[in-house]
Amino acid sequence: MTEPHPPALIALDWGTTSLRAYLLDDAGSIAARAEKPLGILQVPDGDFDRAFAATVAPFLAQKPGLTAIGCGMIGSRQGWLEAPYAACPAGLDELSRAMASLTASDGTAFHIVPGMSVVDADGVPDVMRGEETQILGQFGPGESGVAVLPGTHSKWALVENGRIARFATFMTGEAFAAMRGHTILGRLMREGAAPDAAGFARGLDHAARPQPGRGGLLHRLFSARTLGLFDQIAGDALPSYLSGLMIGAEVEEAIQYLGAAPSTVTVIGAPALAELYATALARRSIVARPGAPDVAVRGLMRIARAAGLL
Amino acid sequence: MTEPHPPALIALDWGTTSLRAYLLDDAGSIAARAEKPLGILQVPDGDFDRAFAATVAPFLAQKPGLTAIGCGMIGSRQGWLEAPYAACPAGLDELSRAMASLTASDGTAFHIVPGMSVVDADGVPDVMRGEETQILGQFGPGESGVAVLPGTHSKWALVENGRIARFATFMTGEAFAAMRGHTILGRLMREGAAPDAAGFARGLDHAARPQPGRGGLLHRLFSARTLGLFDQIAGDALPSYLSGLMIGAEVEEAIQYLGAAPSTVTVIGAPALAELYATALARRSIVARPGAPDVAVRGLMRIARAAGLL
Repeated sequence: MTEPHPPALIALDWGTTSLRAYLLDDAGSIAARAEKPLGILQVPDGDFDRAFAATVAPFLAQKPGLTAIGCGMIGSRQGWLEAPYAACPAGLDELSRAMASLTASDGTAFHIVPGMSVVDADGVPDVMRGEETQILGQFGPGESGVAVLPGTHSKWALVENGRIARFATFMTGEAFAAMRGHTILGRLMREGAAPDAAGFARGLDHAARPQPGRGGLLHRLFSARTLGLFDQIAGDALPSYLSGLMIGAEVEEAIQYLGAAPSTVTVIGAPALAELYATALARRSIVARPGAPDVAVRGLMRIARAAGLL
Repeated sequence: MTEPHPPALIALDWGTTSLRAYLLDDAGSIAARAEKPLGILQVPDGDFDRAFAATVAPFLAQKPGLTAIGCGMIGSRQGWLEAPYAACPAGLDELSRAMASLTASDGTAFHIVPGMSVVDADGVPDVMRGEETQILGQFGPGESGVAVLPGTHSKWALVENGRIARFATFMTGEAFAAMRGHTILGRLMREGAAPDAAGFARGLDHAARPQPGRGGLLHRLFSARTLGLFDQIAGDALPSYLSGLMIGAEVEEAIQYLGAAPSTVTVIGAPALAELYATALARRSIVARPGAPDVAVRGLMRIARAAGLL
């Protein structure tokens, strides 16, 4: 029989639409977890202090006086306390030194991981908040690679020696929803249709064609109408076609961004979406490596260690 | 004193949201015109016959028995009588031979110009309906050039020797409205702000940057958020920035589509939008030639002549 490790840290992944809370033991393992509908846009009256207290109370009941660490939109201007962006390149050291700290009214010390910013060669900024912690939960000290975190705003990051060297946002998920829901492209689509693998593959094919003689996304999007008009793709399959076209376009753009197609990309995201990205990457002969589970809390633990909190 | 030319033809530019009617004399000049809110989506009960009769009655009162010719969505599946697409390349001869004809209940013969279709090297179709007539109103027999018809769905067409060789649709206008109205990009924008030339120019600059190391439109769109977040562009100027970014992206795509930047592009559209496109073209050292007025009716007249109606 092994001795149980005592509770050592509270970790909060606190985003726009949800709050995931974890109790970590002194070995860094998850001893307890909770998920609450208390994303920063949902907290009643913006009373983050109260939402925090209600969430961590069961953990503090197990061991009073624990410290808390958090990441995500809770550290944005719309959150509890702004944790200004740390500039790329940055890793555990930079993030742990740049945390914003407060004391909640229940007496708990709460440290908020900053988001990250990067400025491209043209002076145009990009930002992320929460994803930096997931990426550093996936890639340990000394590790390198490319990660994609698909979603509303997909993030692609280049990790070098345990530090995030640069990253870029692609508005794929949100642009897909806007094009499907608020343009003529939705007209021929059947709502509620099941995902269609052949339609998705056809979208990927169209996205992967080189530009010369063809044009880019603003033109190719219209194929989601014309292929329907000419009965080449059924209304059932059109949503998947558009999805393939846009995820495929993201992969092409990301390859351009990185300068060359990487051999492997780590896909950090929900299984269904990660599967679509794996298919899109395979279309370009890129191996999709599945992300580890609980990367946010793993990242929070590593940052807490770097900060001497654990 | 010159003898007035007698009325010779009724010409209708009948689109989705408006109906423009013209009485032409036997020299092809416009003798009278009317604009009605009777686009094909607005005609009560889809009674096109009645809308037609009400529109042409004043012209027929001047000279009974006139023939009518029309173009636009009235010839679509949702219109009065479908005029199947004529395939590219095509000019006055092909369009005049492929018209769909009916006799209205007032006894008037009405001939509807077909839309045009094109299939790219990958087998993907594109379509237009109404624009083909405008383009052939702009470019006379034997003339060649490149035209853009900016709008919800911008059309770029390559005209060779008086015939439309190929064309492509770019969803710029509709995508702009969807991104502005239905994504996070609208959040920092101030509604009702006046056009901002500097913001527009900055969007064009960002769109014109080459892809390697940068990524494409799905990534660049996000700059309309980050430049606002970092107070580099004011909320007043963000709509114009996004407009510049997207119109600039369209111009880059069109250059790719054409295979090289043309020296001159004829811009056929409403003055304010044509001006923006002229600015975007100038950014790439392309001369914008303003389109002629009344190109739709000029095109209808030429097609009518080719069909022996005039």
